[in-house]
Amino acid sequence: MAASAMLKSRVRRPSYLSKLAKAEDLIDLFPHGSYIGWSGFTGVGYPKKVPTALADHVEKNNLQGQLKYSLFVGASSGAETENRWARLNMIDRRSPHQVGKEIAKGINNGNINFFDKHLSMFPSDLVYGWYTKERPHNRLDVTVIEATAITEDGGIIPGASVGASPELVQMADKIIIEVNTATPSFEGLHDISLSDLPPRRKPYLILSPEDRIGTPHIPVDPEKVVAIVESDYPDATQPNAPEDESSRAIARNLIEFLKHEVSRGRLPESLLPIQSGIGNIANAVIGGLSHGANFRNLKVWTEVLQDSFLDLFDSGHLDFATATSIRFSPDGFKRFYDGWEKYSPKLLLRSQQVSNSPEIIRRLGVIGMNTPVEVDIYAHANSTCVMGSRMLNGLGGSADFLRSAKYSIMHTPSTRPSKTDPTGVSCIVPMCTHVDQTEHDLDVVVTEQGLADVRGLSPRERARVIIDKCSHPDYKPILQDYFDRAEFECLKKGMGHEPHLLFQAFNMHKNLAEKGTMKIDSWE
Amino acid sequence: MAASAMLKSRVRRPSYLSKLAKAEDLIDLFPHGSYIGWSGFTGVGYPKKVPTALADHVEKNNLQGQLKYSLFVGASSGAETENRWARLNMIDRRSPHQVGKEIAKGINNGNINFFDKHLSMFPSDLVYGWYTKERPHNRLDVTVIEATAITEDGGIIPGASVGASPELVQMADKIIIEVNTATPSFEGLHDISLSDLPPRRKPYLILSPEDRIGTPHIPVDPEKVVAIVESDYPDATQPNAPEDESSRAIARNLIEFLKHEVSRGRLPESLLPIQSGIGNIANAVIGGLSHGANFRNLKVWTEVLQDSFLDLFDSGHLDFATATSIRFSPDGFKRFYDGWEKYSPKLLLRSQQVSNSPEIIRRLGVIGMNTPVEVDIYAHANSTCVMGSRMLNGLGGSADFLRSAKYSIMHTPSTRPSKTDPTGVSCIVPMCTHVDQTEHDLDVVVTEQGLADVRGLSPRERARVIIDKCSHPDYKPILQDYFDRAEFECLKKGMGHEPHLLFQAFNMHKNLAEKGTMKIDSWE
Repeated sequence: MAASAMLKSRVRRPSYLSKLAKAEDLIDLFPHGSYIGWSGFTGVGYPKKVPTALADHVEKNNLQGQLKYSLFVGASSGAETENRWARLNMIDRRSPHQVGKEIAKGINNGNINFFDKHLSMFPSDLVYGWYTKERPHNRLDVTVIEATAITEDGGIIPGASVGASPELVQMADKIIIEVNTATPSFEGLHDISLSDLPPRRKPYLILSPEDRIGTPHIPVDPEKVVAIVESDYPDATQPNAPEDESSRAIARNLIEFLKHEVSRGRLPESLLPIQSGIGNIANAVIGGLSHGANFRNLKVWTEVLQDSFLDLFDSGHLDFATATSIRFSPDGFKRFYDGWEKYSPKLLLRSQQVSNSPEIIRRLGVIGMNTPVEVDIYAHANSTCVMGSRMLNGLGGSADFLRSAKYSIMHTPSTRPSKTDPTGVSCIVPMCTHVDQTEHDLDVVVTEQGLADVRGLSPRERARVIIDKCSHPDYKPILQDYFDRAEFECLKKGMGHEPHLLFQAFNMHKNLAEKGTMKIDSWE
Repeated sequence: MAASAMLKSRVRRPSYLSKLAKAEDLIDLFPHGSYIGWSGFTGVGYPKKVPTALADHVEKNNLQGQLKYSLFVGASSGAETENRWARLNMIDRRSPHQVGKEIAKGINNGNINFFDKHLSMFPSDLVYGWYTKERPHNRLDVTVIEATAITEDGGIIPGASVGASPELVQMADKIIIEVNTATPSFEGLHDISLSDLPPRRKPYLILSPEDRIGTPHIPVDPEKVVAIVESDYPDATQPNAPEDESSRAIARNLIEFLKHEVSRGRLPESLLPIQSGIGNIANAVIGGLSHGANFRNLKVWTEVLQDSFLDLFDSGHLDFATATSIRFSPDGFKRFYDGWEKYSPKLLLRSQQVSNSPEIIRRLGVIGMNTPVEVDIYAHANSTCVMGSRMLNGLGGSADFLRSAKYSIMHTPSTRPSKTDPTGVSCIVPMCTHVDQTEHDLDVVVTEQGLADVRGLSPRERARVIIDKCSHPDYKPILQDYFDRAEFECLKKGMGHEPHLLFQAFNMHKNLAEKGTMKIDSWE
């Protein structure tokens, strides 16, 4: 097969060009039951040609359910690949995170065995052999990685994400590299370190977000590379969720709190490195820091950058940002490529093991911000399972950041709409139906109603301030009544440290299931 | 006041001897509402004279409830001091851990505001100012520290624990040092590092349990030292909980698992650094490693050492152990002092910020083992609150270790007795009534019945193996029935990732509260 001029310009390792293949000719590398790794994180940097060819093969030959795989990706890959695999019943097992209607459906109807894990730990556990322990050599069969260039040594220059690619490559018997010639080369934007096994692990010598400790490429054993495939379309991303009045109000409450902390000398005027998640609240917070918050020389240590960070760069307030993925919208990528000279010196992409490292997050004193499914009155949070059972996307890096951050902040609207009631779901509940973040991990809960600073407070003090500051007026009397009754009953029995009416704690959820709203009439 | 010859031999800083005082003359340093720090961790190394003098003062003058304090200790201090303070209503606020009937009573009847926190994080949060944020200078008023010697620079040589003493000293306006002349000087046994604030924090350059990174004493600003008090009795510890057949069976299951991991090449033959908690199961595990397990050259990275570690040293299998506290029984301390030349070169005491550091625990690949209140079928664990509300002792370091360890292991008897049924409480439950360790944190659950290896398993797979391997025969059909019904109902509704009968999940607990046993007749 002849390489295009563009491909030749990207692949500086001549021996790889002799391995050039078409995706549809690689089907035999993927027998039923294979353990497969893909690059990708939050829908960018994922392989496109090989997964699509496999899906085409299954579809064309009616092999649904007959070619099923264990699939490991740093976080979510592209919806057009992973969702299609789920729809074609090609996924037996999946870890540690996913986004997409079809895959969520497969997980929740029992078809896909999904295990969500701290994103910092997934690569560790992978190299420990936890995910392959039933296999003879404790390894993955094939890893498919997207590259935007290949070095002379055969190393991989990833694209817009690093994720778990270094470890997926490290653990694979065979490696397929998809070289994407439809996006620019991202060379120079990455800092890659591999995962040693204990007792040979070493400290991450990172003291500031801009510190480099690794190589600009993912080192690869060239003999393991079995094929090179040219990939010809960019990451299929969606526009970002827009801000709304509620998310702007949350951002205002949060920025006021940060100003207060600066005024009390607990934060420097340039704050500390910021972590911000995905979604409209995160956008509003970063937007708020761009206009008028008056914090200067900010730095960002986070998992994913979205478009709003481009605004923050443009505002002049952001000195440096590092993450494991830049998940821009199509417009955002255009803006980024057009401004490459301006943005790229201030940006670094790392593996998720490093971006989400509790070691580094704690050392840097990160300000961590996330959005949960629900928070309870004692400051536990549910990040994953609606009604305790239905998986949304997975834990992600929420607990990596919230446990180790200096400021551990949960931001959420106080309510969400149910099918029949615009405020039918309270995001502040008596007891979370699933706990991913414990009361020992959260410092601040903030909604559009206000901000609860629960640092150093006992559970009963926490409940009072969370109900008072954060709950929606429709739910405040209901939650207060729960707490008052629980406190009375539990103190009476000498078990009042964290008062609960254990056998009524989910009554609001029950009402939602039965009547479409959490607004219960009474706790009797 | 004249110093005894013994005291003079311990205090090498002459200016301190001019500050020699009697505890009963220091009452005025503790006005109502003071924020107080004490040394101490797991009932060793705590101040004895000043707390007792204050309690005597309150008792003698009927000041119960009129002299109340916010009290911060690394973990638990001596029962004879802290419990007495609780009984005399002298504790308004307490963090982050405690042991003792009276203090638990005060917490659970609402008299004491208790906030339990990861023990690695408590000192961080203290220096962040989280616990003193309502105070004008963000500081503690007085810290009382027990020393076994004082250096020429005025630095403190602690005794059998370090705990949070470095940070409690760092954050105090005034420091009182109790020099204990009834125990030997522990000089040389400690490695102390202080807590910098971000952005000035640095990596802990520890690559192996024996590595030293600090000073052998706690640095002190001598001008802050307001008094030196001679202390004349040793730590009042209790004998260790004895092994029983159940704990020995748990240990056997665990050691078999470790052998299996060695045989599969996932653990070296000398294992990796071991963390083990307190109690009879921990004793049985360490005992099991002493006799016949055939692991050699072991190292220990843990929070607390109990007597069984002396046996492990004596067996010749243990090369080095480090912790923040050595909580021996009176007999154990005698054995330790008698064998000082033998034991002390193999032992190092660090601050709890270091002993429990997630950074180091993850780097070293620690084997972490803890005992919970209950574990649920999806591998969440409750470490703190019985029936979701009644506080036992606090989180301690359980989550520091279980989240970051290479092997995160929960060991528990499958049942405990209720008042009326010898197996009335199942430690395996459908849903934990309080979650301190999440399903994302645990690798292994082990009871006397067997061992569930849940690495890489989806929640439904986990439930099957935990019920099958770990639950008591009396509860296996009950739990299996719960899971089968939950799975059926949730899959039907397309919310079956982690199936629960949300509104019946605590029925076993309800039965216990109402009928004295968790053995329910039916889930209908």
